[in-house]
Amino acid sequence: MISQAQIKLIKSLHLKKNREQMNLFIAEGKKIVDELLNSDNIEVVHIYASGNYFEDTPFTKVTEEEIKKISALTTPPNLLAVCKIPAENTVIPDLQKELVLVLDDIRDPGNMGSIIRIADWFGIGYIFCTGESVDAYNPKVVQASMGSIARVKIDNKNLRTVLQESKDKRIPVYGAKLDGTNMLKQKLTANGLLIIGNESNGISPELGKYVTNAIKIPSFSKDAIDPGSAPDGAESLNAAMATAILCAEFRREALK
Amino acid sequence: MISQAQIKLIKSLHLKKNREQMNLFIAEGKKIVDELLNSDNIEVVHIYASGNYFEDTPFTKVTEEEIKKISALTTPPNLLAVCKIPAENTVIPDLQKELVLVLDDIRDPGNMGSIIRIADWFGIGYIFCTGESVDAYNPKVVQASMGSIARVKIDNKNLRTVLQESKDKRIPVYGAKLDGTNMLKQKLTANGLLIIGNESNGISPELGKYVTNAIKIPSFSKDAIDPGSAPDGAESLNAAMATAILCAEFRREALK
Repeated sequence: MISQAQIKLIKSLHLKKNREQMNLFIAEGKKIVDELLNSDNIEVVHIYASGNYFEDTPFTKVTEEEIKKISALTTPPNLLAVCKIPAENTVIPDLQKELVLVLDDIRDPGNMGSIIRIADWFGIGYIFCTGESVDAYNPKVVQASMGSIARVKIDNKNLRTVLQESKDKRIPVYGAKLDGTNMLKQKLTANGLLIIGNESNGISPELGKYVTNAIKIPSFSKDAIDPGSAPDGAESLNAAMATAILCAEFRREALK
Repeated sequence: MISQAQIKLIKSLHLKKNREQMNLFIAEGKKIVDELLNSDNIEVVHIYASGNYFEDTPFTKVTEEEIKKISALTTPPNLLAVCKIPAENTVIPDLQKELVLVLDDIRDPGNMGSIIRIADWFGIGYIFCTGESVDAYNPKVVQASMGSIARVKIDNKNLRTVLQESKDKRIPVYGAKLDGTNMLKQKLTANGLLIIGNESNGISPELGKYVTNAIKIPSFSKDAIDPGSAPDGAESLNAAMATAILCAEFRREALK
């Protein structure tokens, strides 16, 4: 049985201020909740389901009507988990060894979720976000990450530390820019920071000043004589697409 | 002035059956409409706008209330164009020279739109779709393509011809598959077909039988000894992300 108070509490988690106050977020669907149950990083507090999805994991049986009330999705998948937002990291990764992502004001939940999924695919363990970025525990982000939020650490606190350390230790800071150097024409390191800018405005001046290597994805307009110069086609790529291509290129280079 | 009959007609274009019957679709926002106005491929029939967006192009001035009525978007950008769906291609591209995309039942409008934008960025001029794929003139696809639909030709008719021709002429047909050969470990040609499968089910058996080269994007799970094998992280990439990474890799190889 789910009580009215529980329904009210879970619905309140659709909003960031309540998630932050209670340190809880929701995730929906068997696949994503399974991944969270297997996560070292995230604790599943309670599961509500309208069917018998689990043999070993305790859950509260609810009706489809009740799931609809607590779900943040248009088509609720009949299984919802309340999870703990992990404690902020106190350690930061070894920037001499690891490649990490920095999201500078990524606003679209779908983009943020996709970027988390990409990081997971390419074995990038940390994403540092500016305060203006969409909350990573927003239900839409959690769903778009397809469970990858169970493995990738999202850090909203230590961005300044990481930027300062990169500067002090001369760690490369790559910034995705439309006027950067063609990614195929520069040597990419296996470690460092890769900054992805806002969907409309790109990288902010504040973060831009830390960039040591501006990098761009060459376009291959049909009519361009020199690929990568003077594109005649799409003006830009979506932030998540650009992240996907750049991460693939970094990993490719690191293999050499 | 916009008449009630016009409002009714434009609203009807939110649905595929009406778009097909009237051979018209809608596009919204200054940027996208500008690109369509510059397109050789697509004819803008009429523009409705609530502000003075154009100096040289005639348009019908409407109120914001009226725009809300005809818009397919939650936040209408105050400018909407009715455009002609281009005639089906009678010529198909030279498969000995060109790389083309084949979408096997891509259902999500956001994915379809993003894939069109990626094709445009990488100078891929043709996308062939199965009948089950989402309609490329769906308003959500048009918006997600960010105007790239003005340049990339979408073909719903000649897929069989292209597949048969590839078979007859021994043109490589790449299929994105999770159990394919690592893209970094095979030679990619500058021409051929690249098939992207459905978001949940991948490539259908029907199209799968044409695949000559199964290809996958290696994952780089942190704990994997051999990158690309036995991923421990994300199970898969979103269809549009995978397309982005693969197109970048094909173009990179073609540059060699």
